[in-house]
Amino acid sequence: MRVPFDELHGVLRDQLLARGMLAGHADRCARLFAEASRDGVASHGLNRFPRFLRMIANGSVDLHAQPALTRSFGALERWDGRRGAGNLNAWTSMARAIALAREHGIGAVALANTNHWMRGGAYGWQAADAGVAAICWTNTLANVPPWGASDPRTGNNPLILAVPRTAGPIVLDMAVSQFSVGALTAYAARGERLPVAGGYDARGALTDDPQAILDSQRLLPIGFWKGSGLSLMLDLLAASLSGGRATHEIAADPERETGLSQTFIAFAHVEPMADAVLQHFHGRTHDARHPGERTLATRARSLREGVDVDDAVWREVLESQH
Amino acid sequence: MRVPFDELHGVLRDQLLARGMLAGHADRCARLFAEASRDGVASHGLNRFPRFLRMIANGSVDLHAQPALTRSFGALERWDGRRGAGNLNAWTSMARAIALAREHGIGAVALANTNHWMRGGAYGWQAADAGVAAICWTNTLANVPPWGASDPRTGNNPLILAVPRTAGPIVLDMAVSQFSVGALTAYAARGERLPVAGGYDARGALTDDPQAILDSQRLLPIGFWKGSGLSLMLDLLAASLSGGRATHEIAADPERETGLSQTFIAFAHVEPMADAVLQHFHGRTHDARHPGERTLATRARSLREGVDVDDAVWREVLESQH
Repeated sequence: MRVPFDELHGVLRDQLLARGMLAGHADRCARLFAEASRDGVASHGLNRFPRFLRMIANGSVDLHAQPALTRSFGALERWDGRRGAGNLNAWTSMARAIALAREHGIGAVALANTNHWMRGGAYGWQAADAGVAAICWTNTLANVPPWGASDPRTGNNPLILAVPRTAGPIVLDMAVSQFSVGALTAYAARGERLPVAGGYDARGALTDDPQAILDSQRLLPIGFWKGSGLSLMLDLLAASLSGGRATHEIAADPERETGLSQTFIAFAHVEPMADAVLQHFHGRTHDARHPGERTLATRARSLREGVDVDDAVWREVLESQH
Repeated sequence: MRVPFDELHGVLRDQLLARGMLAGHADRCARLFAEASRDGVASHGLNRFPRFLRMIANGSVDLHAQPALTRSFGALERWDGRRGAGNLNAWTSMARAIALAREHGIGAVALANTNHWMRGGAYGWQAADAGVAAICWTNTLANVPPWGASDPRTGNNPLILAVPRTAGPIVLDMAVSQFSVGALTAYAARGERLPVAGGYDARGALTDDPQAILDSQRLLPIGFWKGSGLSLMLDLLAASLSGGRATHEIAADPERETGLSQTFIAFAHVEPMADAVLQHFHGRTHDARHPGERTLATRARSLREGVDVDDAVWREVLESQH
């Protein structure tokens, strides 16, 4: 069914307020969930909200925690997320990186001890909407086998790159696995095969069966050894810049995945040339699409006709008691 | 054959001196070529030197140019490479980013109007050897079709991430194509097939035949749509941060590929945790290798037994007259 954006936002906000979150924080945190669904990323929007409520209940997420500055090096700062709401911590960190960039040209926040940031692209849109370019990434629990191995030892560590543009930001939001766990779950729920191989089945053969990959936990890194190496580097950088935890120190249970490390970098000075670059990239027949291209159309439809929600999840959230 | 490192370095340096390059610049520029061969990346070392000499002769590379600061924003600076030697410009830019990072915590140089930086990993090693973490990337001429297209419209844009470590830096040096043009050329020269599909043949079928891909110019981006998007973003960021050229403005002729844009970012504060991360990544049986792991062994052998050089290329360089 479709639900008006404001209704979706309000219901999520009220669930957080009922758990004692400060009004301004509950509004922002709920908005980030609702915007993910609005933009077509329900896996990190409404569909993820029930687990978020369970992680508040099991103590992994502290709704009352505020991130705290632990070290300032000038244009680079370290913050402690204190296991607060992950999307709110990430949004606050990108806002701080943008402020640092406005002062120093470039600004960065290295965030330790936080929680899953939900839709990583949100912080790319946040930056681009503010007129700055940005790069950010997070580590995760171990859910991808390194190239050469068969057991998950590295994360699918999403990487986001964003460039502002008057006609709509260009935002790449990619996990370093060929498909994120959220995407695999969505394909499996729809009973669809993947468009290309996304990992290995229990016998070690490459497969396009999303459920077989979820069962084996053998997600394929993009570009085989390249994605494997990229995943390692993003984990190493996020943890060693923030002084926080690396993937191998994070609980392997998705319901208790906490203490993540993230990096947010903003660039305040960007020459406007994206239109010319995109025109060439698209080609005369527009046979190539750019990252973020479909988001604005999905968003417009959601705001016009309501946000597409999964009926069962929506009912679960409406009836949720704390 | 194998040639002592100092001899290789000296011969390349003398070729540059004979063309009027300043002594200090010729020494550094030649060293970067020699070190690429020393570390097992001959495609961007000695094997690339003859083309470098041709690009000096055809005016694409100006051996006498010095990079110039064009804008300072504090921790972020824009530099004009003035079409000088690409590896020297890149080395100078990373050195400047490191100095900015030591002052501001993070530092970045956006470099316009430069030339091919040869082995991108060199600037990751440069940073890690100085005890700082780094990210850098370059755009290139159009040599990869975006996902959905069949003609090359985006670059294979190498991306480098580096983290310092006492026992040896961890440096990822990857083009966003599954194989770089240099790697495809090396496989083809050895008459070998690729270990996985690396692009499309003339009929549009995925293939592991390196020559077929070099002929069709249809290199496969890592992760299909993901590498395609990553390539676009790296080009957009490099050009719009520096105010320089984007891929579509760069001559499609490899002998006249000039006016590139690059980004160099350094982080001066890194907590040492790489050993623990690597131990977990490698696993008990060391079935997974980390980026840069083989480099130190190759380097040690090169310094002990001489650098492995292609006889014909070595003779060509020895006999080169300007």
